[in-house]
Amino acid sequence: MGKHRAEAAAPAVLGDLSMLLGVLDLEETGADEYRGTQPRQTAARTFGGLLMAQAIIAGGRTVDAVAAAKSADRGKPVEPLRLHAVNGHFIRGGEIDADIDYRVTRLRDGASISNRLVEVSQGGELLCSILLSYTSDKPGLEHQPELSAVASMPAPETLPGLTEVLAGYESNLGWFVDAIRPIEFRYANDPAWIQKATGEQLGHNRVWMRPDGVVPADPNVQAALLAYTSDTTLLDSILTSHGLSWGLDRVVVATINHSMWLHRPLQFDDWLLYSTESPVAAGTRGLATGRFIRGDGQLVASVAQECVVRHFAAREN
Amino acid sequence: MGKHRAEAAAPAVLGDLSMLLGVLDLEETGADEYRGTQPRQTAARTFGGLLMAQAIIAGGRTVDAVAAAKSADRGKPVEPLRLHAVNGHFIRGGEIDADIDYRVTRLRDGASISNRLVEVSQGGELLCSILLSYTSDKPGLEHQPELSAVASMPAPETLPGLTEVLAGYESNLGWFVDAIRPIEFRYANDPAWIQKATGEQLGHNRVWMRPDGVVPADPNVQAALLAYTSDTTLLDSILTSHGLSWGLDRVVVATINHSMWLHRPLQFDDWLLYSTESPVAAGTRGLATGRFIRGDGQLVASVAQECVVRHFAAREN
Repeated sequence: MGKHRAEAAAPAVLGDLSMLLGVLDLEETGADEYRGTQPRQTAARTFGGLLMAQAIIAGGRTVDAVAAAKSADRGKPVEPLRLHAVNGHFIRGGEIDADIDYRVTRLRDGASISNRLVEVSQGGELLCSILLSYTSDKPGLEHQPELSAVASMPAPETLPGLTEVLAGYESNLGWFVDAIRPIEFRYANDPAWIQKATGEQLGHNRVWMRPDGVVPADPNVQAALLAYTSDTTLLDSILTSHGLSWGLDRVVVATINHSMWLHRPLQFDDWLLYSTESPVAAGTRGLATGRFIRGDGQLVASVAQECVVRHFAAREN
Repeated sequence: MGKHRAEAAAPAVLGDLSMLLGVLDLEETGADEYRGTQPRQTAARTFGGLLMAQAIIAGGRTVDAVAAAKSADRGKPVEPLRLHAVNGHFIRGGEIDADIDYRVTRLRDGASISNRLVEVSQGGELLCSILLSYTSDKPGLEHQPELSAVASMPAPETLPGLTEVLAGYESNLGWFVDAIRPIEFRYANDPAWIQKATGEQLGHNRVWMRPDGVVPADPNVQAALLAYTSDTTLLDSILTSHGLSWGLDRVVVATINHSMWLHRPLQFDDWLLYSTESPVAAGTRGLATGRFIRGDGQLVASVAQECVVRHFAAREN
């Protein structure tokens, strides 16, 4: 049992968020080596968002350890650097009923930037390789897109919950209905399966999201939760651009790489709008981009993900 | 001398493109290990675009080797997979007068996707870690942004060359004036230093670019040239958004990560428009995004780069 386990398990949370926070509490299995269990899964293969989240915890532990050692050396607290960039390549899918291993390589510990490579494997087979970069925040040039329209969007509290928008689709979207829901979703537009019924073909997707419970203050845990969340509705626009939906059409989608940039110190304990779109698809690959935006219009993070997407002819019944 | 050297050096090109193609012709120093020299440099530190370009050549050699072995096994040619994604983290700057080492790790050789990690180092010190992904192209879902406006932009042939737009700025931008120019630039808007004079503060930057000479057909070389090119004007919008310019203001900019996605089989032997912008800067970091677009509006590649940017108070004269 890792020395961090007791601390991270402390916050009193209930339900699926608790289950996710539980599996983010990695076991230390060696020098810069960690092991993670998986929460109950309804998909056929490992969930990329979980692997990124656990990799962020593994990498963060080693960065925090450097700050702790510096603090001890100097006899005064040194603030750990914070995650600002994650770029990972997904190499192969893993089994959902076996543990996952995380091996961290300390690429560099600099004064203002530190770098890590996390190799994620299962039974000795590499599932993904993830580059992580950590930095301190100082004042500098500031600009961002005009996002004040977020303030005039329907407030999350006024929008239906996931159970409500899934009603009537249980037979086709059973895996999604039965999946754990550590993150609360409030669609600000119709989800893919309802667009299918209305004939709408949105090139974007806007969903309010927040962790469904009390979130620990640990910046690594909050960044891990955001990475997990960033791998949920991101690819939908690739399908809805073509009037397609998960569950209702024969589509196979597999993430091949995922990037996230955190622009400011993160606080992910309240609603963020996840605004996503798909700029391009060609040659069986699609690119999707996303932004996490606070209710007051502040841009928190940018996301880009590439996937393989295949659409097969209609099923014969 | 690597066995590929003779082949890659074959095309008859002249001038700076020839020099760049020469240094892309890496020497094979061991199993999946390569060494590259640098062309004449005017900057103080290694150029990220060159490191990515050489890493793409190194990774591509090992992917091509797998296809060649498969071809020999099957007694018929097997098409090598093509690069579609590059995500690299820049760990530290290197010296401009020493060779650079490239070590390739074959993460996976799959039927339709292969993955590589390239570790770039100099004198045993890691400069950057780069994840590369290779795939085959099959027909699939197709969409892309409306980019037909490109066709109505000033044609590159009608725009002034780099020497012309640099005229009068030689004392401030000497390093840029003296840099090698393997890629021809035609600014479709005023560059940063002229915006400074006109008072314009563009949030975007549009430059036509093409290799200045004959380009080998080898897809790895063309992808390497595009990666090199993608690291040129990308960050300018971060500065011009604030009315700042290289050379005229005290700004320090260092790339910390770079991502490029190639959406279609690449042909980089004619003009492409490099359309870039900076969506966000905060806490000493800026994000810039770019698109390479063909004259007919087809999106060729997407780019994202994060940098550290610092602006110091005006110089006292």
